Amino acid sequence: MTNDTITAAKGFLAAGLHCGIKRSGKPDLGLLVCPTGAKAAAMFTTNKVYSAAVRVCREHVKRPEVYGVVVNAGNANACTGQRGVRDAKRMCALAAKEIEADPEQVLVASTGIIGEQLPMGKVAAGIRKAVAELSASKSGGLDFARAIMTTDTRVKQAVRRLRISGAEITIAGTVKGAGMIGPNMATTLGFITTDANLSSPLLSRALNHAVGGSLNRLTVDGHQSTNDTIMILASGLAGSMPMADRSARYRGFTRALVDLCDDLTRQIALDAEGATRMFKVVVNGAKTKAEAAKAARAVADYPLVKCAVHGGDPNWGRIICAVGSAGVRLNPARLSCKLDSITVFRNGAPVKFDAAKAAKVVRQSEHTITVDLGAGKCSDFCYGCDLSRQYVEINADYHT
Amino acid sequence: MTNDTITAAKGFLAAGLHCGIKRSGKPDLGLLVCPTGAKAAAMFTTNKVYSAAVRVCREHVKRPEVYGVVVNAGNANACTGQRGVRDAKRMCALAAKEIEADPEQVLVASTGIIGEQLPMGKVAAGIRKAVAELSASKSGGLDFARAIMTTDTRVKQAVRRLRISGAEITIAGTVKGAGMIGPNMATTLGFITTDANLSSPLLSRALNHAVGGSLNRLTVDGHQSTNDTIMILASGLAGSMPMADRSARYRGFTRALVDLCDDLTRQIALDAEGATRMFKVVVNGAKTKAEAAKAARAVADYPLVKCAVHGGDPNWGRIICAVGSAGVRLNPARLSCKLDSITVFRNGAPVKFDAAKAAKVVRQSEHTITVDLGAGKCSDFCYGCDLSRQYVEINADYHT
Repeated sequence: MTNDTITAAKGFLAAGLHCGIKRSGKPDLGLLVCPTGAKAAAMFTTNKVYSAAVRVCREHVKRPEVYGVVVNAGNANACTGQRGVRDAKRMCALAAKEIEADPEQVLVASTGIIGEQLPMGKVAAGIRKAVAELSASKSGGLDFARAIMTTDTRVKQAVRRLRISGAEITIAGTVKGAGMIGPNMATTLGFITTDANLSSPLLSRALNHAVGGSLNRLTVDGHQSTNDTIMILASGLAGSMPMADRSARYRGFTRALVDLCDDLTRQIALDAEGATRMFKVVVNGAKTKAEAAKAARAVADYPLVKCAVHGGDPNWGRIICAVGSAGVRLNPARLSCKLDSITVFRNGAPVKFDAAKAAKVVRQSEHTITVDLGAGKCSDFCYGCDLSRQYVEINADYHT
Repeated sequence: MTNDTITAAKGFLAAGLHCGIKRSGKPDLGLLVCPTGAKAAAMFTTNKVYSAAVRVCREHVKRPEVYGVVVNAGNANACTGQRGVRDAKRMCALAAKEIEADPEQVLVASTGIIGEQLPMGKVAAGIRKAVAELSASKSGGLDFARAIMTTDTRVKQAVRRLRISGAEITIAGTVKGAGMIGPNMATTLGFITTDANLSSPLLSRALNHAVGGSLNRLTVDGHQSTNDTIMILASGLAGSMPMADRSARYRGFTRALVDLCDDLTRQIALDAEGATRMFKVVVNGAKTKAEAAKAARAVADYPLVKCAVHGGDPNWGRIICAVGSAGVRLNPARLSCKLDSITVFRNGAPVKFDAAKAAKVVRQSEHTITVDLGAGKCSDFCYGCDLSRQYVEINADYHT
């Protein structure tokens, strides 16, 4: 069977298990190792309050080579003061000792409840056990993917393969999503492996480009969490020559990475807390690209639009209302709106349309809302998902 | 029985009835008349897409005297193009003809579904019937208050009485709220009457001051609607001398108006769509007042905080997360948070607290979240309410 997990890329071993953080008994500790050393790049939350794991990982990712990543779910190790920072460093040190690397050569990530100290005894035992279970097989990758989940209901993985100058390159990724998702960085945690041969700066540029066009375009509840982290590790073991900036190889690699990230983004959107469907908002006719993005996000974040999508209701009035209050320049006499290919509002006035057909559009698992602001020539887009009773249930009942 | 409706102020007659816009058969047309003429001031939505009623009302309120206000619920007359503007003007003309005023001396407001043309035959017949039913009694005022409701479950009214230089002054108001509520202008429609003697500019200043400290501080779903309008009409019939700017009389009047608007704001919050409780967010220690307001609003708008309040969960981690991503300056090492008087987070680290007591605080019909950013000396506040399954039900199933 094809390996569609993060161990699909050559040179990576992974493991995942329950160490005792989650009361449910589900997996909560993951370990990813590249024994030969990997180039690494990462992007982090822009939240001014960030977890101890983010703080430590930001430092460690600067190292020229990293050998492993340790991650836990069920506890965010955020808002945990100095003790939290010591614990995050200790997670790295524990893993480093087992795999014979420097503590600074291990990256760390956490996700879960904010404000509780990590049970370090359990975490330490878990890390030791994970090292013993490390595997380059599909099951190792899948165990890792399961260990990063919180309120996710499904494992989220994607793989892309491409030939570059005769070598077969693999890029593989796993993410966890669900809640607290807002641009920028529409993920809680994401891990991408590849056996391509890239320098860290180039890897970093490719990651920024790919995340900018995918994960950064998704909003679930409009806020970045304290823990958002996405990283890419490149083992270079596919046997290809190092890529040069702006080369055809680099462009090919980046295209595949964008495609992989878009795939993972859609998996997050469709499994967002309580979500039953997703939608894309495209804004055209804006004065600037930034205003187009702002208007698109205003629509995707507007609870009344999200509720209408949930109800399968082609309620374009709420879309127009969101656009009007987005704080962007628009021409009310040129403002128009489409649901997929059905025009529902044109040049500031309602249009007669087939309501049953429009309802069918909204009831698809994914549809596109297109708004023309009539003010300029710039466009942008973002992804959103519906707001359901289940979202409220999950988030009203989740701890503390 | 004391009159606690908008006809409590001397010089006002009101009526409300079902003219046929709402399919439910509930009241949907209101008329307020000041036969001797009133000074008027109004504030409107800042949404760039605004209703035909707002467009027409913005012009008419500039007249030195107004004689009436006609309002309908069930149809927003927004996104209705040129025909919508003609219909809004016609509503004024129809009322003006019956009460012998100029069409421009009548104000107009609409609320309800966006994007449908008004059934003008029904509206015209309704206006004529409402004129015949005008009354200075409590029942006239109550009928008006009922006629402006949409998804409101309760009539919202308040009255304040004060003595100014021997004369008894009354200020009375009614609002409709429920959904599409975001600063600035946390209301859909609001009507305030008074028999005080003020010039239009002074009336306008008093209204701006009062709304700025109350209705503009409430967020339900973070967006202003296309129709938000709040107006005040002063008949001057209480027999007091005209007020001068900065006089003790003016200050007394303004204090009472602020108090009335705060009362109406709380009524809206507690009856917001699906809301079961409200909360106040106070932000201290901000670099600027604007940043304090921005942070307070970020907390009150954050779906995860709203869900936690709904679940009665003292989940301060979500509060800190919202503050961190609000885009304001803060000192993570000085950041603190209280729920009423219970400190839950101090100087960037969690604090042991009585979870049962904290849950009790959150389960009150109203509690205060206080956040100190540790970055400066400025403060501000806003009001919010919880997010419930009912919010989703109401807004997923409402029309279209």
